[in-house]
Amino acid sequence: MASKIWGGRFSNKTSSIMEEINASINFDQRLAQEDISGSIAHCKMLMNQNIISTVDGDRIITGLETIKKEIVSGKFHFKSELEDIHMNIENRLSELIGETAGRLHTARSRNDQVATDFRLWVRNAIDLIDNKLENLQRILLDRGEEHNGTILPGFTHLQTAQPVTLGHHFLAYVEMFGRDRTRFKDARKRMNENPLGSGALAGTPFNIDRDFTTKALGFDSPMLNSLDAVSDRDFALEFLSNASILSIHLSRAAEELVIWNSAQFNFITFTDKFSSGSSMMPQKRNPDAAELVRGKAGRVIGSLTSLLITIKGLPMAYSKDLQEDKEPVFDAFDTLTLCLEAAIGMFKDIIINKESMRLSAEQGFTTATDLADWLTHKKDVPFREAHHIVGRLVQLCEVNNCKLTELPMDQFLAVDSRLTKECAESITIEASINSRTSLGGTAPSNVKKALIAARARYLRNSK
Amino acid sequence: MASKIWGGRFSNKTSSIMEEINASINFDQRLAQEDISGSIAHCKMLMNQNIISTVDGDRIITGLETIKKEIVSGKFHFKSELEDIHMNIENRLSELIGETAGRLHTARSRNDQVATDFRLWVRNAIDLIDNKLENLQRILLDRGEEHNGTILPGFTHLQTAQPVTLGHHFLAYVEMFGRDRTRFKDARKRMNENPLGSGALAGTPFNIDRDFTTKALGFDSPMLNSLDAVSDRDFALEFLSNASILSIHLSRAAEELVIWNSAQFNFITFTDKFSSGSSMMPQKRNPDAAELVRGKAGRVIGSLTSLLITIKGLPMAYSKDLQEDKEPVFDAFDTLTLCLEAAIGMFKDIIINKESMRLSAEQGFTTATDLADWLTHKKDVPFREAHHIVGRLVQLCEVNNCKLTELPMDQFLAVDSRLTKECAESITIEASINSRTSLGGTAPSNVKKALIAARARYLRNSK
Amino acid sequence: MASKIWGGRFSNKTSSIMEEINASINFDQRLAQEDISGSIAHCKMLMNQNIISTVDGDRIITGLETIKKEIVSGKFHFKSELEDIHMNIENRLSELIGETAGRLHTARSRNDQVATDFRLWVRNAIDLIDNKLENLQRILLDRGEEHNGTILPGFTHLQTAQPVTLGHHFLAYVEMFGRDRTRFKDARKRMNENPLGSGALAGTPFNIDRDFTTKALGFDSPMLNSLDAVSDRDFALEFLSNASILSIHLSRAAEELVIWNSAQFNFITFTDKFSSGSSMMPQKRNPDAAELVRGKAGRVIGSLTSLLITIKGLPMAYSKDLQEDKEPVFDAFDTLTLCLEAAIGMFKDIIINKESMRLSAEQGFTTATDLADWLTHKKDVPFREAHHIVGRLVQLCEVNNCKLTELPMDQFLAVDSRLTKECAESITIEASINSRTSLGGTAPSNVKKALIAARARYLRNSK
Amino acid sequence: MASKIWGGRFSNKTSSIMEEINASINFDQRLAQEDISGSIAHCKMLMNQNIISTVDGDRIITGLETIKKEIVSGKFHFKSELEDIHMNIENRLSELIGETAGRLHTARSRNDQVATDFRLWVRNAIDLIDNKLENLQRILLDRGEEHNGTILPGFTHLQTAQPVTLGHHFLAYVEMFGRDRTRFKDARKRMNENPLGSGALAGTPFNIDRDFTTKALGFDSPMLNSLDAVSDRDFALEFLSNASILSIHLSRAAEELVIWNSAQFNFITFTDKFSSGSSMMPQKRNPDAAELVRGKAGRVIGSLTSLLITIKGLPMAYSKDLQEDKEPVFDAFDTLTLCLEAAIGMFKDIIINKESMRLSAEQGFTTATDLADWLTHKKDVPFREAHHIVGRLVQLCEVNNCKLTELPMDQFLAVDSRLTKECAESITIEASINSRTSLGGTAPSNVKKALIAARARYLRNSK
Repeated sequence: MASKIWGGRFSNKTSSIMEEINASINFDQRLAQEDISGSIAHCKMLMNQNIISTVDGDRIITGLETIKKEIVSGKFHFKSELEDIHMNIENRLSELIGETAGRLHTARSRNDQVATDFRLWVRNAIDLIDNKLENLQRILLDRGEEHNGTILPGFTHLQTAQPVTLGHHFLAYVEMFGRDRTRFKDARKRMNENPLGSGALAGTPFNIDRDFTTKALGFDSPMLNSLDAVSDRDFALEFLSNASILSIHLSRAAEELVIWNSAQFNFITFTDKFSSGSSMMPQKRNPDAAELVRGKAGRVIGSLTSLLITIKGLPMAYSKDLQEDKEPVFDAFDTLTLCLEAAIGMFKDIIINKESMRLSAEQGFTTATDLADWLTHKKDVPFREAHHIVGRLVQLCEVNNCKLTELPMDQFLAVDSRLTKECAESITIEASINSRTSLGGTAPSNVKKALIAARARYLRNSK
Repeated sequence: MASKIWGGRFSNKTSSIMEEINASINFDQRLAQEDISGSIAHCKMLMNQNIISTVDGDRIITGLETIKKEIVSGKFHFKSELEDIHMNIENRLSELIGETAGRLHTARSRNDQVATDFRLWVRNAIDLIDNKLENLQRILLDRGEEHNGTILPGFTHLQTAQPVTLGHHFLAYVEMFGRDRTRFKDARKRMNENPLGSGALAGTPFNIDRDFTTKALGFDSPMLNSLDAVSDRDFALEFLSNASILSIHLSRAAEELVIWNSAQFNFITFTDKFSSGSSMMPQKRNPDAAELVRGKAGRVIGSLTSLLITIKGLPMAYSKDLQEDKEPVFDAFDTLTLCLEAAIGMFKDIIINKESMRLSAEQGFTTATDLADWLTHKKDVPFREAHHIVGRLVQLCEVNNCKLTELPMDQFLAVDSRLTKECAESITIEASINSRTSLGGTAPSNVKKALIAARARYLRNSK
Repeated sequence: MASKIWGGRFSNKTSSIMEEINASINFDQRLAQEDISGSIAHCKMLMNQNIISTVDGDRIITGLETIKKEIVSGKFHFKSELEDIHMNIENRLSELIGETAGRLHTARSRNDQVATDFRLWVRNAIDLIDNKLENLQRILLDRGEEHNGTILPGFTHLQTAQPVTLGHHFLAYVEMFGRDRTRFKDARKRMNENPLGSGALAGTPFNIDRDFTTKALGFDSPMLNSLDAVSDRDFALEFLSNASILSIHLSRAAEELVIWNSAQFNFITFTDKFSSGSSMMPQKRNPDAAELVRGKAGRVIGSLTSLLITIKGLPMAYSKDLQEDKEPVFDAFDTLTLCLEAAIGMFKDIIINKESMRLSAEQGFTTATDLADWLTHKKDVPFREAHHIVGRLVQLCEVNNCKLTELPMDQFLAVDSRLTKECAESITIEASINSRTSLGGTAPSNVKKALIAARARYLRNSK
Repeated sequence: MASKIWGGRFSNKTSSIMEEINASINFDQRLAQEDISGSIAHCKMLMNQNIISTVDGDRIITGLETIKKEIVSGKFHFKSELEDIHMNIENRLSELIGETAGRLHTARSRNDQVATDFRLWVRNAIDLIDNKLENLQRILLDRGEEHNGTILPGFTHLQTAQPVTLGHHFLAYVEMFGRDRTRFKDARKRMNENPLGSGALAGTPFNIDRDFTTKALGFDSPMLNSLDAVSDRDFALEFLSNASILSIHLSRAAEELVIWNSAQFNFITFTDKFSSGSSMMPQKRNPDAAELVRGKAGRVIGSLTSLLITIKGLPMAYSKDLQEDKEPVFDAFDTLTLCLEAAIGMFKDIIINKESMRLSAEQGFTTATDLADWLTHKKDVPFREAHHIVGRLVQLCEVNNCKLTELPMDQFLAVDSRLTKECAESITIEASINSRTSLGGTAPSNVKKALIAARARYLRNSK
């Protein structure tokens, strides 16, 4: 037992079930690169501060570089009995360079070490997600430009409400994903603080230089309280919160793709690239990717819930429960990366059935509001009254089984004498769309500008 | 593309990202044995009903048996491009026996097939958990018997409340885990219905015999509605609900172990088998297993949340979102299995520090209620008044910095003249413990019987 | 302070913020009837056991009956400074009958008292939900009978899959809600145990008779361990788990109603009774109730999550955290009651647009499987090959923009010579529907029997 | 029915259950002030843009001011049949000023109206929480200053690890709550965008001025896409995420208070102000407020889960499910406000038992790391070797049942010859504490500066 890195005072072997539940190497090996970067920075600082000699420090760094290559090339042998990535690497280092390896852990604890590694990993994960989000925005903007003139019904309550353009619709998603990006950016800034140098929980008597490691590892500043530094997992929770909100956005987009792809809506068609078949029903073409993107929101939110529960009620400072912090974050990252790629692929892939969209936009009296607005605007009818007048007109259309545009003009007048024939100009789909020029409204002239502005705001290389 | 089992109508290749998000083989290969059992039962039924010939059926079964062996021996090569376990096996079958393999899927869809496989898997998981729960109860009963005479303070609000025995305390956990077992048993009964034969969603025109497969697979009855059969995942949700409640029980026990193991409580000591050390602090002996059992409740509940969210708002019948059903169940099962083993190990391992427990039980006026009860019982003082009298006495003890048993008798009388010297007999720890003979109470005579009864009730082989 | 029922040893006033966070009377007054029932049973037991005199007991019971009437009539004045329902009632009792009131709490603690009250409340809640579930099943069966001949497309992946009947579809929901009922029934049985007589946590020295109160309160048996009895909230968790699964079922039905009610599907129409309008768009008729039933699943699952988290990691026995147990249960009950009523109302209300459903069922090659089955059945083509042949045929139809039934027979033969003209009989909607006579399948002859059987199985008074 | 504001096209009455499930007035009346502010800003803009006349506008504003007063004074009669706060106010306005009231809703929908109201409400809630967080930090800093010299054991795994000062410990919480504040600040900035003017979903043809209302309502900018503006609830989700993380911090602090308050730790004592008693056990003094703060984390996280689930998978734009957005936010705000007040009260209230803390700090070999550090620092022993040497020493102490400081010097030398008598200076509690001068470490000289810096960083009026 004494062979364990921490085993000086232990006489007997750990129980096998204890080893099994305790070991994290099967998942925390994903932190290998970050662990080595952190160790190299720590080692350089120890050398600079004359806490270890240059000779020892150089040997350690050379050893760590060797291990880095072993891991990249897949030659490194991870051992479960060495518990975690930190001890696997330290142990290998001691195989490579002997007892000098034992100087690396001076003025350091696994508690501040793992907090550092994990922060570095999450920071990088945020950058990767930001990149994918930008790509998703790009494809939405591209297809939005392509279809700024494409008219479809806007829905509320899944009832046709008012006509909008597809460009406008896609811009709504661009905005959502834009918020996701700022949320991740804020989280990145807040988490970019260095816990290294906090020791087990109380700091260290060695004359360390935390600014050195802070700079070396690209952190903005050292964490200011050693107890907080080793017990804090806010950055993981905030990552998962942001991931959950993003997954909600993706699930909403995916739901629309599924519904739009139904035979009854027929707004879009997936090509063979994003369809799959049925083992029993020869005709089926299913939008599996969209459904999975929708369904996987559960998984991401489950990961958030999981970690919130794990941390709830933990006294300070480090408790082993915190080892449960990594898997939910890894899984959420992998899930989102996959879902974002799938979303990018799907939005590229879909064929837009313009006629079908247009046809739907003509049904359901989607310009009824325009008529009420006309009454208010041209005839000075209080809007609430105008709303009631048009409501009665819609009833009449339903009885006659016709559209507003198909109702004879005399019937308009019969309902209200102010519904003179000029009102007809307001209830065509085109008039409706084109009139919505208020800031943020769906008029194509508007949307054209909005697309350009969004491209400038969100894309690093705007084309 | 046409090479895909479902690819007849497809002309182009699936996108690689679509393949990646769609493939489930990396996790659903855990259903391999169940898939083969289900296929064999289905095949036998098809033969019996003359839907396929005996010759064909025999070849199929022989092929499936071969595949089974390949899988058990680790020789089977799972392919991601074949999506899932069902197509991997069917594809391999066709390699082994040629186009006859194509007859196996007659009157079957992956929709009823996967529902069947998964139910078989969950049913088995329940049996395995029940077994571990019984073992955990056994060790709690064993240690409870050993320590029925060991006195510790019972707590409410983590404040010492009244003395109890450790046997009594452990019995509380035996009861909790007993409820878990009945909950799983009820779920098992409810889920033990056969979806096979429901086809994609509407049944089949073939003259199948669902009672045959029901019997062959150990189900109690066929599911009665084909739409429900392929879209229902209640059994997974109920498994996860029960798993969550069980994980809560484990987290409560683990919290007690962590607190009891602190230097300040010092009620128990873990041996080296269930302790681990610190990389920085040489003296540390940490109860990592207990903390992990506590923390992993988050993970199990996260899995429940995850699946509830995934299924929320899905229209009938099968949607691909449901592919997200397996991983949370697998993870909850693995987690619980590990936690139950760890709990069994820990309860076996802990050294009970009897003196320390006893000492704690003497502090905090734990027999104050007994004195109030004495006043009510012997002096006919209304309990509410007795409670107030003793409250004042406790205040007096605090001022004098002494225990109830250390307060001079005249001080008792000064507070209330009915507190005659006979009352002293009620406030010893032993008197308190022994007096609690009400059904379910902590008196050792009681608990002895309760331990025997619990053994008979819960353990299959009660020693 | 000494005026507080528990205040004997306290000298100073509670902080106002402490009072505010501590008080539960604003929600636990819902337990008033259960609290009085429990107290009366407890009091009768104390009399029977000669722990209190008949005179005192009678006065107490009379007092409690008076309070009961005051509460029912709304005259009772709940006071926040008396914390909870138990102390409000005990305090009122002492106003009514003087210090005799102080004898009621003999051999009882608020810990076992509140556990008893809450179990009685949940037991009743289960019965009320069961009743509503039965009514929902009844309306589904009624409308299913009415529409056993109504054909609509069955969906998987929201893609038209195979034709089914509406009767069959509604039966799937009958089955789901049937499982909900058995789940609640199992929970009711498991929770119907009596904690009263467990005292604060350790039992009591008084010679109480727990079988008496068990019988008096309709419990099946006393709880067997006093620590467990006061700390257990499994019954609340299990109620919330079952509530969550039920809410998932309701959300699925609601999603279908929302989609079916869209202009594009047009399968159903809500009358004015279950539609609401828009403040801006005069034509709108929104299915608000369906959306709310769908959305409120979040709320119910949130309640489950909430309580799981609260209880996680609590040491035994009672901790004040457990006071957070009631609100989630109350809210889930109120939410479900409302949603069930709304679901009943909606299923009664909806107008079925039979033609629209039928038209949809004819699109999307819904009988392609039937053709593959025909090839297998009549021409002995292995199903997998048959599936591919029909896949190619579907491709051909798409190129020609026609239905399977519209494709000239020579084209069938061109694809495969075994597709002789007899195959045409298999691909009509009626043939497809009628052929699915396998147990649980959608053939109307089947479904007719299934409706009768379900009525017998689920409805107490089957009309 | 036509009497409903939206009822023009409706002929029949709404079902009573529909009314019940649809009505939100019982909770959204909390938006009354925001609704009126939004309406006044909207009205002024309509006047400025000549969309309504000055005369009409003035009448509307006067009417709204009247309603505001009615609500503040409690005279306003909220009606459930008028569904929500918006229609209650509009209806009252029309009672007060007649049909002119009908002009207010020009160019507006309830969809953008409610989004505006709710954002204003959440913005204010964030400011209130920030205020309370600052107060909590202040009391922690005050008590930290008071107890910078107070030594207690720092814990990891609830095992005594290294001595720290209470000032240092409290600073860890100051940092946590500091992060909470920046998280809320970021959320506030992100959400402070104006949805008003987006109409139902597509904008409006009226010549509105969204910059006017943006400025009038204190928003930073108008939302840029009308579809997004009415369907977005990210601000509510982000509020709840931040609330959840804050509740986790509070639960951790509360857990420490509960544990520290146990008889076994005895680190702190609550006065009568923050203690409550037991109905059965006369001696009890329970830390109910701390337990409730801990337990209520479940409730806040439940609210987050609830809203995430509700929004998951909703197609654009507004769906009625979104009406479920308010109650979780209201409840989380009320809960946190209460918990923060309780935390402030408790940290003010607690009596610090310095001797008890100090005594604990001396146990458990808390200076073992210091000895290993000494070996590394003074004798150039590689840290890993030093760790093992001290581990063996600790074993020896345990055998001899003594502290490190009590072990005879010759025994030190027997373990390792480099453990010369000078090492004794490193293992006193004071030496340990004072040596931890690394940035963020627990040395009182350090902590003193950190307290001053934190005060400057976090408190608006630093005393």
